[in-house]
Amino acid sequence: MNKTIACKVIKVVEERSYACDELLVCEYSLTIFLNSKRLATLLCSPEKLKELTLGFLRTERLITSLKDILSFNIDEEKGIVEVETIDKDTSREIFYSKKVDLESIKGTITPKSSGTDNFLNEVNCEPVNSDICLDVNKIYDFMTEDLDYSEVFKTTGGVHCVALCDTEEIKVIAEDVARHNALDKVIGEALLKDIYLKDKIIILSGRVSLEMILKAAKLQIPVIISKSAPTSLSVALAKKVNITLVGFVRGNKMNIYSNQERINL
Amino acid sequence: MNKTIACKVIKVVEERSYACDELLVCEYSLTIFLNSKRLATLLCSPEKLKELTLGFLRTERLITSLKDILSFNIDEEKGIVEVETIDKDTSREIFYSKKVDLESIKGTITPKSSGTDNFLNEVNCEPVNSDICLDVNKIYDFMTEDLDYSEVFKTTGGVHCVALCDTEEIKVIAEDVARHNALDKVIGEALLKDIYLKDKIIILSGRVSLEMILKAAKLQIPVIISKSAPTSLSVALAKKVNITLVGFVRGNKMNIYSNQERINL
Repeated sequence: MNKTIACKVIKVVEERSYACDELLVCEYSLTIFLNSKRLATLLCSPEKLKELTLGFLRTERLITSLKDILSFNIDEEKGIVEVETIDKDTSREIFYSKKVDLESIKGTITPKSSGTDNFLNEVNCEPVNSDICLDVNKIYDFMTEDLDYSEVFKTTGGVHCVALCDTEEIKVIAEDVARHNALDKVIGEALLKDIYLKDKIIILSGRVSLEMILKAAKLQIPVIISKSAPTSLSVALAKKVNITLVGFVRGNKMNIYSNQERINL
Repeated sequence: MNKTIACKVIKVVEERSYACDELLVCEYSLTIFLNSKRLATLLCSPEKLKELTLGFLRTERLITSLKDILSFNIDEEKGIVEVETIDKDTSREIFYSKKVDLESIKGTITPKSSGTDNFLNEVNCEPVNSDICLDVNKIYDFMTEDLDYSEVFKTTGGVHCVALCDTEEIKVIAEDVARHNALDKVIGEALLKDIYLKDKIIILSGRVSLEMILKAAKLQIPVIISKSAPTSLSVALAKKVNITLVGFVRGNKMNIYSNQERINL
């Protein structure tokens, strides 16, 4: 499918205007059915749909490997994917109990409970345990490579890129209109290629949202590197689950927000 | 509450590094209880929390005006707001049926249905009917003003700004770590100030997501202006519901994607 679509626009320069064609980034709606029940509808970029579906199921903990899957059918024209798993217990109910991590984290909050700090205490992830060590110059290289990857980004400005690397090179890279989809695509492709995740690094073109740290924590990925700013809760969660968080990688500068021992200065 | 928080970081410049304090944008967790039932947890910037709650209830169509509210209590320390409405029918069930618009849009999709184009056909909003006309030079002014608004943005790079204007000036402006919260804050403040919405304009510092067009359509706001790129579905929805969508407002240039008759060139 096309990644971009031409759209008639009125281009205005100061007070002068003229009609022309402009490229828009394509947004596509993919509905996932798991064991014949509708699971979710993802608004995404129309490529790597198999990777996206597998990565979504993996980060939602509905599958752990390809062996869990009995059948897998994508109808790209209809925007529908049907997945059957061996263990039928991965029902919609289980999905909903795990779906919005923020919801499950906040499950115990009542008007009587004791505040926002509880938020982090409710996160139910094992601390990440990895002694990988990454050279600081590699970070500059990876970021340049990640940002250079996308032709779509360069022509439309509307997508996020995510790369998965080891300490030497980029292993998998994907882009999407939504940053969490781009991460799921990378995870799905890693699953297809049987890439071990617990010693890898994630590179983000965009901001670090709390959701990205949660996904990384669930998969025990030890390092996250972003071009942009993290929020206070992202940094707090990274510290809590022992993830190395690097942000604001621009030119020859960066900030290390947590667990700097994995960065070789 | 503070909008930013100091955080110890390791700053790296080339291969040199030193410890220093860096400002992070604060993220805060606000749980809304409606008629004693937990409705939602919003991750947001810790300001204009009353406006955020009211705007969220309004854009979710759980209230239509302040008259619908019987009592309203915020506990900022606990991150909890309790709202009681006169009509108790605004239950969690109704909320969930309307919560994720994308879900309700896709409610009728089955493996037998006929594809992504259905997506737009399922949107259940009245077309926006307004004959306001906005001067093109005002758009440049508004965008500069919107982007200049936020000290937090300038110091941390981590927030989105949204403004509500008439054809002459900015009426309400808000910022948040999440763009949909910034829009809800603006809507909530408009509700508090009894500002009529159906002849107003929304200015966004960030990208136009489909969700923003949906929120505007539900409130019948006729014009959306963004610094960044819209996606193909955003443009398609704007056209369908008769919203004027302007994007890529940078320097003295912009693109008009739909319904240009409301822009005075």
